[in-house]
Amino acid sequence: MHIGFVGLGKMGFNLVTNLINHGHTVVGYDINEELAKAIETVGAKGVTSLTDMYNSLPEKRYLWLMIPAGPLIDNVIEQLLAVMQPGDVVIDGGNSHYQDSIRRHAYLKEKGIGFLDCGTSGGISGALNGACTMVGGDPDVIEPLHQVFDDISVDNGYLYTGPAGSGHFVKMVHNGIEYGMMQSIAEGFEVLEKSPFPFNHAEVARMWSHGSVIRGWLMELTENAFRKDANLDGIKGRMFSSGEGKWTLETALDLGVPTPVIALSLLTRYRSLQDDTFTGKVVAALRNEFGGHAVAKN
Amino acid sequence: MHIGFVGLGKMGFNLVTNLINHGHTVVGYDINEELAKAIETVGAKGVTSLTDMYNSLPEKRYLWLMIPAGPLIDNVIEQLLAVMQPGDVVIDGGNSHYQDSIRRHAYLKEKGIGFLDCGTSGGISGALNGACTMVGGDPDVIEPLHQVFDDISVDNGYLYTGPAGSGHFVKMVHNGIEYGMMQSIAEGFEVLEKSPFPFNHAEVARMWSHGSVIRGWLMELTENAFRKDANLDGIKGRMFSSGEGKWTLETALDLGVPTPVIALSLLTRYRSLQDDTFTGKVVAALRNEFGGHAVAKN
Repeated sequence: MHIGFVGLGKMGFNLVTNLINHGHTVVGYDINEELAKAIETVGAKGVTSLTDMYNSLPEKRYLWLMIPAGPLIDNVIEQLLAVMQPGDVVIDGGNSHYQDSIRRHAYLKEKGIGFLDCGTSGGISGALNGACTMVGGDPDVIEPLHQVFDDISVDNGYLYTGPAGSGHFVKMVHNGIEYGMMQSIAEGFEVLEKSPFPFNHAEVARMWSHGSVIRGWLMELTENAFRKDANLDGIKGRMFSSGEGKWTLETALDLGVPTPVIALSLLTRYRSLQDDTFTGKVVAALRNEFGGHAVAKN
Repeated sequence: MHIGFVGLGKMGFNLVTNLINHGHTVVGYDINEELAKAIETVGAKGVTSLTDMYNSLPEKRYLWLMIPAGPLIDNVIEQLLAVMQPGDVVIDGGNSHYQDSIRRHAYLKEKGIGFLDCGTSGGISGALNGACTMVGGDPDVIEPLHQVFDDISVDNGYLYTGPAGSGHFVKMVHNGIEYGMMQSIAEGFEVLEKSPFPFNHAEVARMWSHGSVIRGWLMELTENAFRKDANLDGIKGRMFSSGEGKWTLETALDLGVPTPVIALSLLTRYRSLQDDTFTGKVVAALRNEFGGHAVAKN
């Protein structure tokens, strides 16, 4: 399959390599000239012009976007619309909001252009060696691409999830689950850290990664992290987020589904970005008001 | 190694089989005559008297308990004390509270008897084919048993965790983490279930089990469950618990460690055991009091 690939960052670069390793032909575009050059080392053609990319492809073009979610996707789609023909297909492999994907699918469908929303999991190593892909869109549009998604995924790691938006919906929920799992693992290790026992966290994570009920990739990554820094002294406990946990919670609220643990995992991340809280000041002040309890002074 | 094994339930039976498959000699005790007979089919000697079990073992006896946590452990230890000699070792392989294990270790040490607390994870299949074991106790007591724990565990699935109580402490935290991970996975599937998309939950879990960030044994079990019952129509959402999540939270509170997600996972289990809540009645009544908002009548 001939594929035009937009965005050669860490994920995109590895996905292109993965596609080429499976016999596909890729023209890779990035605004960054160095990345466009670097992609040639893995056997792709590298370009810095979207039009050049498009014109390098045979008819019925497959245009795979691996760029940050948000207005940039709409922007690139608009640029591509200057050259795209009916029958072409745009694949959004990033972490777009599923409602944006539903909108883009409808917008492009009017013009005879296919749109697939592809959630991609497995991190940078998965992108290279076998990802996990969940793809939504029209059945006739995805039909010729099943093999490609299967190729870049680990065995059994690809699912056609259904109508437009469903791929990014499943990816959103995947990330929401990830928030809760990570928070739970992390809380457990804080209990170990504050316990009366001198645990070796890397060794505990190693043992839990083999045969326990809570074994899985996140526990293996936990071991890796503790191997690099036995007590994580080198980093702060700031938990940033990219939006998918928030979207999961917003979606759950809209659907009326109580998701207390995913919600609290997200709020715990927000709390971690604050050095002190206004909530804390208010509670401290109230305790002082009614009971004369001591407050810590600023 | 010659081992006396107390408790031939699902976990015990499989662990005995596992021990025998690794060349160890086991005398299995259970109060249930059928289990004592059944264990002979896997090559153990089966008995229904603790004293018979004890007397069937060569000196420096290893007595492995796989029975429910609580007073029963103390009860069996007291019975064994009628025959045990200095140099014998008791291994508690169940889910005892780590503070009980610290107490029992001290109590038996006074009498010259060793005590090891062995947390065992991996479920019934793990007990048979390779468990995950986390064991605390005195270094000189565990020394001759490292090989046995290694034998019954999957590769890299055994850890000597440190002083008495540490094995059960680590197992307790493991289970606390398990609560949060399970709750997070479950909430995600409820969002999928209530979504506008007709997802096949087994297929989503299958795909997430291969290459995704949230892959792991719990996701594989999720697939299994949905394969048996596509929407889990056959069961109620009652979430029982065995105590280790509660202990993890109690321990976290004692240590001053905020574990919001583990706490909320436990409380969500408690909520699932209630058909209706008094909390709900109070909130409904208050909304009615201040704003005349409708209440649902009983």
